Amino acid sequence: MINPKFPIIFYGGDYSPDQWPEEEWMKDIELFKQADINIVTLPVFSWAKLQPAEDRYDFEWLDKVMDLMAENSISVCLATPTAAQPIWMSLKYPEILPVDIEGRKRTPGKRVNFCPNSKKYREFASNIATKMAERYKGHPALAMWHVANEYGTYCYCENCAKAFREWLKQRYGTLEELNRRWNTAFWGHTIYDWQEVIPPSKLNDDDTCYPAIALDYTRFMTDSNIACYMEEYNAIKKITPDKTITTNISGYIKKLDQFKWAKYVDIVAWDNYPTPYDDISTVALKHDIMRGLKDGQSFMVMEQSPNQQNWQPYNVLKRPGEVRLLSYQALAHGADTVMFFQLKASKGGVEKLHGALIPHAGHEYAQKTRVFQECAQLGEELNKLNGAFLDARFHSKAAIIFDWDNWWAVELSSGPSKDLHYFEQVNKYYKALHRLNIPLDIIKPTSDFSQYDLIIAPVLYMTKPNVADNLKAFVSGGGTFVSTFFSGIADENDNIILGGYPGELRDLFGIWVEEFDALIPGKTNELSIYRPFGNLAGKYECGLICDVIHLEGAQAIAGYEKGFYAGKPCVTVNSYGKGKAYYVGTDPEDSFLIGLFQTLCKQKNIFAPLADIPDNVEVTQRFKDEKAFTFILNHNEFAVNVNLGQDNYFDLLSECQVTGDYSLGAFGAAILERREAI
Amino acid sequence: MINPKFPIIFYGGDYSPDQWPEEEWMKDIELFKQADINIVTLPVFSWAKLQPAEDRYDFEWLDKVMDLMAENSISVCLATPTAAQPIWMSLKYPEILPVDIEGRKRTPGKRVNFCPNSKKYREFASNIATKMAERYKGHPALAMWHVANEYGTYCYCENCAKAFREWLKQRYGTLEELNRRWNTAFWGHTIYDWQEVIPPSKLNDDDTCYPAIALDYTRFMTDSNIACYMEEYNAIKKITPDKTITTNISGYIKKLDQFKWAKYVDIVAWDNYPTPYDDISTVALKHDIMRGLKDGQSFMVMEQSPNQQNWQPYNVLKRPGEVRLLSYQALAHGADTVMFFQLKASKGGVEKLHGALIPHAGHEYAQKTRVFQECAQLGEELNKLNGAFLDARFHSKAAIIFDWDNWWAVELSSGPSKDLHYFEQVNKYYKALHRLNIPLDIIKPTSDFSQYDLIIAPVLYMTKPNVADNLKAFVSGGGTFVSTFFSGIADENDNIILGGYPGELRDLFGIWVEEFDALIPGKTNELSIYRPFGNLAGKYECGLICDVIHLEGAQAIAGYEKGFYAGKPCVTVNSYGKGKAYYVGTDPEDSFLIGLFQTLCKQKNIFAPLADIPDNVEVTQRFKDEKAFTFILNHNEFAVNVNLGQDNYFDLLSECQVTGDYSLGAFGAAILERREAI
Amino acid sequence: MINPKFPIIFYGGDYSPDQWPEEEWMKDIELFKQADINIVTLPVFSWAKLQPAEDRYDFEWLDKVMDLMAENSISVCLATPTAAQPIWMSLKYPEILPVDIEGRKRTPGKRVNFCPNSKKYREFASNIATKMAERYKGHPALAMWHVANEYGTYCYCENCAKAFREWLKQRYGTLEELNRRWNTAFWGHTIYDWQEVIPPSKLNDDDTCYPAIALDYTRFMTDSNIACYMEEYNAIKKITPDKTITTNISGYIKKLDQFKWAKYVDIVAWDNYPTPYDDISTVALKHDIMRGLKDGQSFMVMEQSPNQQNWQPYNVLKRPGEVRLLSYQALAHGADTVMFFQLKASKGGVEKLHGALIPHAGHEYAQKTRVFQECAQLGEELNKLNGAFLDARFHSKAAIIFDWDNWWAVELSSGPSKDLHYFEQVNKYYKALHRLNIPLDIIKPTSDFSQYDLIIAPVLYMTKPNVADNLKAFVSGGGTFVSTFFSGIADENDNIILGGYPGELRDLFGIWVEEFDALIPGKTNELSIYRPFGNLAGKYECGLICDVIHLEGAQAIAGYEKGFYAGKPCVTVNSYGKGKAYYVGTDPEDSFLIGLFQTLCKQKNIFAPLADIPDNVEVTQRFKDEKAFTFILNHNEFAVNVNLGQDNYFDLLSECQVTGDYSLGAFGAAILERREAI
Repeated sequence: MINPKFPIIFYGGDYSPDQWPEEEWMKDIELFKQADINIVTLPVFSWAKLQPAEDRYDFEWLDKVMDLMAENSISVCLATPTAAQPIWMSLKYPEILPVDIEGRKRTPGKRVNFCPNSKKYREFASNIATKMAERYKGHPALAMWHVANEYGTYCYCENCAKAFREWLKQRYGTLEELNRRWNTAFWGHTIYDWQEVIPPSKLNDDDTCYPAIALDYTRFMTDSNIACYMEEYNAIKKITPDKTITTNISGYIKKLDQFKWAKYVDIVAWDNYPTPYDDISTVALKHDIMRGLKDGQSFMVMEQSPNQQNWQPYNVLKRPGEVRLLSYQALAHGADTVMFFQLKASKGGVEKLHGALIPHAGHEYAQKTRVFQECAQLGEELNKLNGAFLDARFHSKAAIIFDWDNWWAVELSSGPSKDLHYFEQVNKYYKALHRLNIPLDIIKPTSDFSQYDLIIAPVLYMTKPNVADNLKAFVSGGGTFVSTFFSGIADENDNIILGGYPGELRDLFGIWVEEFDALIPGKTNELSIYRPFGNLAGKYECGLICDVIHLEGAQAIAGYEKGFYAGKPCVTVNSYGKGKAYYVGTDPEDSFLIGLFQTLCKQKNIFAPLADIPDNVEVTQRFKDEKAFTFILNHNEFAVNVNLGQDNYFDLLSECQVTGDYSLGAFGAAILERREAI
Repeated sequence: MINPKFPIIFYGGDYSPDQWPEEEWMKDIELFKQADINIVTLPVFSWAKLQPAEDRYDFEWLDKVMDLMAENSISVCLATPTAAQPIWMSLKYPEILPVDIEGRKRTPGKRVNFCPNSKKYREFASNIATKMAERYKGHPALAMWHVANEYGTYCYCENCAKAFREWLKQRYGTLEELNRRWNTAFWGHTIYDWQEVIPPSKLNDDDTCYPAIALDYTRFMTDSNIACYMEEYNAIKKITPDKTITTNISGYIKKLDQFKWAKYVDIVAWDNYPTPYDDISTVALKHDIMRGLKDGQSFMVMEQSPNQQNWQPYNVLKRPGEVRLLSYQALAHGADTVMFFQLKASKGGVEKLHGALIPHAGHEYAQKTRVFQECAQLGEELNKLNGAFLDARFHSKAAIIFDWDNWWAVELSSGPSKDLHYFEQVNKYYKALHRLNIPLDIIKPTSDFSQYDLIIAPVLYMTKPNVADNLKAFVSGGGTFVSTFFSGIADENDNIILGGYPGELRDLFGIWVEEFDALIPGKTNELSIYRPFGNLAGKYECGLICDVIHLEGAQAIAGYEKGFYAGKPCVTVNSYGKGKAYYVGTDPEDSFLIGLFQTLCKQKNIFAPLADIPDNVEVTQRFKDEKAFTFILNHNEFAVNVNLGQDNYFDLLSECQVTGDYSLGAFGAAILERREAI
Repeated sequence: MINPKFPIIFYGGDYSPDQWPEEEWMKDIELFKQADINIVTLPVFSWAKLQPAEDRYDFEWLDKVMDLMAENSISVCLATPTAAQPIWMSLKYPEILPVDIEGRKRTPGKRVNFCPNSKKYREFASNIATKMAERYKGHPALAMWHVANEYGTYCYCENCAKAFREWLKQRYGTLEELNRRWNTAFWGHTIYDWQEVIPPSKLNDDDTCYPAIALDYTRFMTDSNIACYMEEYNAIKKITPDKTITTNISGYIKKLDQFKWAKYVDIVAWDNYPTPYDDISTVALKHDIMRGLKDGQSFMVMEQSPNQQNWQPYNVLKRPGEVRLLSYQALAHGADTVMFFQLKASKGGVEKLHGALIPHAGHEYAQKTRVFQECAQLGEELNKLNGAFLDARFHSKAAIIFDWDNWWAVELSSGPSKDLHYFEQVNKYYKALHRLNIPLDIIKPTSDFSQYDLIIAPVLYMTKPNVADNLKAFVSGGGTFVSTFFSGIADENDNIILGGYPGELRDLFGIWVEEFDALIPGKTNELSIYRPFGNLAGKYECGLICDVIHLEGAQAIAGYEKGFYAGKPCVTVNSYGKGKAYYVGTDPEDSFLIGLFQTLCKQKNIFAPLADIPDNVEVTQRFKDEKAFTFILNHNEFAVNVNLGQDNYFDLLSECQVTGDYSLGAFGAAILERREAI
């Protein structure tokens, strides 16, 4: 639990009182209370105000804000303001400003605009964190800590180059080992002195960076940002050891390895900003990734917009009920908070057109707005839930492997196809299972697989040490494993695993992939099921990549219809120990994956929480003590009937006993509690 | 009048004799005379020739050219050559070269490639201007002055940064005020020392510049370029106080606030280069903007091409009659000159494939070319016109508000839609009125509105001080005002006007816009007219932005058909004093705007100069003394009949009396003179 | 012959033993021998290994490799490793790293990443070349030399600027001449001191570089790269005067003038990497260009992929038989080698996913792969050919003019259309003749034309000195010449040839092009044949550019159907002396060109080697001593019948006597030998 003193769903979000005259504050708080807001995040970007000069601080205004919050029983998620250093600081200590991949020093201003390896920055940051911790350690409003904001700067300055060399010395020990691991013999990149290690750059004609170097630099940047964050974390922890500390992950999650990072936060927190083009499964997947980061522990939605954003190409309004539904979707996937960016719209600056609880129309009109009314209704509902399922867990028998190293390596790769994107592939497999409402975890390739019966690893290009063994132990123990083309190709340094694709997984799948074709845009192939396999029969479109596969013990489930490899297998299954390993050697249409997972789940007795769920209705379950909480989310713009069967539930939202046929309105949600043996 | 000694339509253009051997000059002039050329612009880019070294000048060749022109009764629009400083100058004084928004110093060469705040540049420029003014002040060929060429460089060098800080001190006085006006509390951008003001930059990851700062920098760049220009202007004016001085505005007019600039030129001059994709209304709009810059005074077309350009992606030939028609279109909209870039094609350099009066084929063949023949015919016609309507004015009862600050602010805005472009929106409204041939002025939001009955302000996002009052006075006095979505949002510093959109215009429109939706590409809505309103009935497609509107006294004319705001109003009218304010809360199809303006013009007794004008025929009127000049321009590739009614006119082009049905050939033009009481 | 000691088709390619442990080498060689590999290229990128420090060398490993090759009767194409300097070298002597056109110094690493004018680089490069030549001059494995790899860096550093000024002094002597030739009077670019010459740059707002300067810089870069190469060439030649020396041309051939370069290689060599979008004619054209570079001498294919590449957007597998067919296509067009990049796939680095003879699967599996099997079959076949047609020549009566200066100048031109690409136009004309299987040479505009009856010069924009005379002598002597729109426009300095387009070719064509229209995308015209002309009749689509033509002695063959120039001629023929000059004033559809060349070839008695060749079958002939070798290549995915007539041939591939109907399988090839009087 984030804070045992507050066993509730935290509901609130970012608030910047320092952008407004003091006389507005109480009016804002009145509205917060009307909307059942119980937490505010602040002062996220107020470093310049808190520290107007190197040796001068101004906390008085913040003291007042903290006191006001306490007086009004609103908790504070206290943020260190270090995501945006004051301009005076950048000018006085230019080392703080990062250098981009084209070698250009950035100018002061903006946010998340510091070199994570700058000693000066780290010193200033931990200093202000310390000052805040000391000042507010006993403050009744202090609920938890929020360090900086959306870390993610990649810097390429000389300091970083030096630190990178040290990092490499730690990692590889000797230059001989470095050369070996980076395979620098290729193109004569041999390094004879640590000084010859140069960070990646986009200045060159042939702009594909050397992948092994770029890959390690990416890892190094994760580590650099973590170290930078940890200076603040440690400073705060020393003073308030009992308070939860975190930092919020940007919704664009690619830059930093969040599995690594999660070890250093007390709770995972992220910012959920779906685009108008995102499928609901994409949002669900990201939530599940967040829940997976700390092995199933609850996480925070630290930010979502109560309405439109401003920074997307097309800033579409959220439809009535959509914010509520997105909020319950978060809770359904393991979140324990519903928090917004932002509680009050800024009147100037880049984000002034971003949605907020209190609009530009002001206090007088706020309550008349659709957004405020919806948020207030939601606040009231969340309040009634009374923290019933805080810390509740998932019980999943299926899991998808997700790996940042793999993501980076796949997309740093030169070839086979520029249209091969790792997250897209993972999302595609996730989407099929999500449509079937199969409870699902997102795990690392090195996770403990013992609780699962079905594990899926789309495009597992990189098999890091022990990964193959982990998978083989899983399958030989009876598990079902599914992977795809472009798997088992490279080791942790992006060197090919020699001896035939898919490398260390070759015996697991009982196949040898001799070569893989990339299809030009518009070109497709077909896969044809040899003999009906569960729900699969007939032909399915496929494309993007087509593996040319030799069976080495595996059985072919489907083969290609076209091209010189027509008739050769493209989907295979191999018995390995007590389990089975499926290989999908191409990129099939969605209906194939749905059929495949219907079949495999049936085989493995993996079921959705409810039977016969209508299309576009999402159902998940969280478990706590001896209770199960079933979330039903209707993503349709019309009402649907859901058959609850003969069980009796208590709907926490309508506060009714329900059973049998249950009608859910457009964008409706239900949270059904049932006591059950687990 | 540009020069009272020459009460004629200046006809001619750019000529670069210094690119040719002296023996060619007289041959060129012979051809000029055959084409009735009466003015040449020179020596626009000859600084390197006129000043081969810091302390050395060579005017002798120019003396000869000036004398030749005088002897042949051709006037000279004498240009200072300062748009392209000599390379020796850029190398000796590197401060002259500008720095771009990515912080990169430009290299010598090119043109319009100087820092407008460089003292050295300004010193050199005013010095050569002085020398030219002194040398040619009494020369009989000197008709007027042309300073530099197409100003527009934005520079981001250290000198500019310093000058920007001074400019801000002038504007805001104190840092407190600066911080307040820029709302720097957002993202902790607070400035504690003037040195902390940093010009905008594109070096940063999050590449949206802080809009308030970028907006002021844009204004500062207008002021910097004006100040740069004024050093030359003042130097020349002191010596030849009676001569008209101007500089030519680039046809891409966005960079500099031309309303501001127009105060500093004796006559507005611009370069008209339509693209193959431009509608005729776009050209007409730009002419009308030019006429509006000095409150309806005549302007110059300083450049247009007698045929193709070279620098467009596709350099389409002008069709037969097109140059003539474009020339009369310019005169029809208030131009008093017809001038070309260029009279003679260069044989080398970037623009060598640009159209010209004298082609690469040379003197022997020039007269055989279509282009020369058309230009010569045009010259003869213009000559016969004998300056009849020089300085003639428009009498418009309708006007469109156009504002550079607004343009910049709308397009610096992050949100709501990247497809929202100010000029496009203005052009859309202009086009509807243009199709109806309604006489129309382009005015500032702070102009005197007293002569108008109908004022339109598309996307008036920014309401600067007094603008709301000016509009309210207009409407309450009986005027009809039309504005659109995304109006009344921000103040002059791009801070939101709090209290509900459309801010200070809320009571004028009698509405409150609670929120505005942005539609993704391909998505549309429909607006449905509640009950027939003049020429409007039924449904019209709309999209891009959809305001969600509450009526606060206004009446709804139309509502949405789709989305969660279906049924809510999207077009409203409010009675305000004696007038009416219309609000169009979305981006409708063209036919809606045509219907709307047919209706409003009928209500306000605003009529086209002639009734029943065929499609694609443009009609305007200019008035002088007691005469009206009616321009009829047939943009069709076929002949049309225009009904002149029972009035009698004298057609200045055909030199006939005309009345009743009047036939105009393909691309034909008529200028009908009639004496009338005004 | 590349090496008279080896009168065979060299078959092999790039091999990087230094990327692998020594114990692998012999296993690799075993596989090479099984595939009949007789040459390896090495050590292309091994500079860092050969010279670990400025004063330290390590040749021992290479000695072993050379000895192993000799022992196994495999020749070595010995490469200097200078395409990738060691990182220590770049760091110690930063002048070696190039500066790009935006003024940015590149970082160490990558390949072909050196300033061609760096003295230090040249010194190091000729030094290592000397050392290698001395060490291996007598080595039995040494077959020939391969200098560096795919030259092509354009550098814009201060050293280059200085060298450029010297180059210009050599070329133009005086500044007066420089200013005259560059026409610097345009835009006041006059240069008063050599220091004022500035290399082109993309830092400027108006990013069209001054074409005359950019053109000379491009020539200078060819010369700089040649000079850089020649330091190695001379060093090696001095020591091994009898050994063939070359360097391999990148398949993207635009950067360097290869006609110039070809003078400095003993044999032309290039790298053939077709994209999935290339027509077979594009590959054929590039081969023919290579054969043309040294006036018809045989050339080397130094690299092609035995399967996919890795660096294309979509890396499509080669289909079965495709590598074989591409190899015979090369031989059919004048190649005397079949060499691959690469013999063994790298396990790490940017190109690790590139196809290779020995795959990642390793020695054990190599022979089971499709690629190895196909290559081994090919090796066996090539072996049997026994060098039969080495040095054999083409006997072409038709030729296409190709010119790098022209290429650069057309694409540096601002106007008329951004969609006008020189290579595309040449390819279009080539493709028509290729479909007719007309034997064809690629020649320079200044080549000796005496052997040809038909010469085609698409878009001959630039007519350099003597070119017009050369063409006129050809036509007046009876030749048929075909050229197109945008020809005869500019001189060697990109100055317009005054006096009417097409300049010096005007009397040859008997026309005057008054102006030329550019069509916007999607817009087309039609050309209509006035009266049937050979195989041409009716109407054909045309577009892109439309010349407006006056006949001055020529006869019109076709005219436009649309636009203001409808009815005017667009295809003309002029009798000039004993010959005829055809002018195609627009960009017609392919079928027009096929009809045109059917007609002209019939007129000139130019025939394909065989009659009635099926579609998509390529036929060429090479001649040696008294033998003719007819290559028949079936590019169809199905078998075809080719009628050989009544002649008897010996098929070198099937080793059978053949005559009459001859069936060729899908992707099949035949090489038919026949003794004949030449």
